[in-house]
Amino acid sequence: MTFQLNKTLEKDSFLITELKLCQVRLIDNADFPWLLLIPRLSNLIEVTDLNDEEYDLLNSEIKIVAKALQHELTPDKLNIATIGNVVTQLHFHIIARYNNDKLFPKPVWGCEFTPYSFKASTQSIHRFKTVINQII
Amino acid sequence: MTFQLNKTLEKDSFLITELKLCQVRLIDNADFPWLLLIPRLSNLIEVTDLNDEEYDLLNSEIKIVAKALQHELTPDKLNIATIGNVVTQLHFHIIARYNNDKLFPKPVWGCEFTPYSFKASTQSIHRFKTVINQII
Repeated sequence: MTFQLNKTLEKDSFLITELKLCQVRLIDNADFPWLLLIPRLSNLIEVTDLNDEEYDLLNSEIKIVAKALQHELTPDKLNIATIGNVVTQLHFHIIARYNNDKLFPKPVWGCEFTPYSFKASTQSIHRFKTVINQII
Repeated sequence: MTFQLNKTLEKDSFLITELKLCQVRLIDNADFPWLLLIPRLSNLIEVTDLNDEEYDLLNSEIKIVAKALQHELTPDKLNIATIGNVVTQLHFHIIARYNNDKLFPKPVWGCEFTPYSFKASTQSIHRFKTVINQII
């Protein structure tokens, strides 16, 4: 079965780039630099659904994206999570948080989204794609 | 420098066992089967502070604890996260969630804690220690 991106994840985010295992996407919320990593395999819900090789690859890609956010944005804290209580397709959140952001120190899940302008989303996608490609 | 557990993490949880890298602890909240993994190394805040070997070991121990919760409790969903906006010492949450638990589908962070009775905490610690040791 081929990989199909969940419709909610697709609607709520923009494709940044594809790594060996995962799609990297930007959540359409201008309040937080908020990336998603989604393994391009079918029928995944939990990390335990991945075989050892896939799991190692996922974790190496999480580290790449974490380093990219740190390098580009120097956040006060990274938040990294897989929750999936609503959208069960396996996906990881990697979010750059600042002491003075809109919700700190609260987590961001469940917050209202402030959509990017077309220009701002295009700039952010380009920016993150460039830095991820530098770090790979 | 030797490892020192953050005082808040210590106060809010019970030691279950020590793996090669991490302490495994039970959060003192009887509403959710909620475990912590804390690498026993000093001065860690982000996953990117770990070297490659330590990072691989952390991820293997996350998978062990995830499998233990699945094996023992058959949750509807696992929630796995490192947030650290309040307590910055690197720690991972691994939580077994059910469709009918107190907060589902909301995340649990920031919720009120319902402390275990002494008997219930002792039973849970023993239960999780036993299943983790079976899976290692």
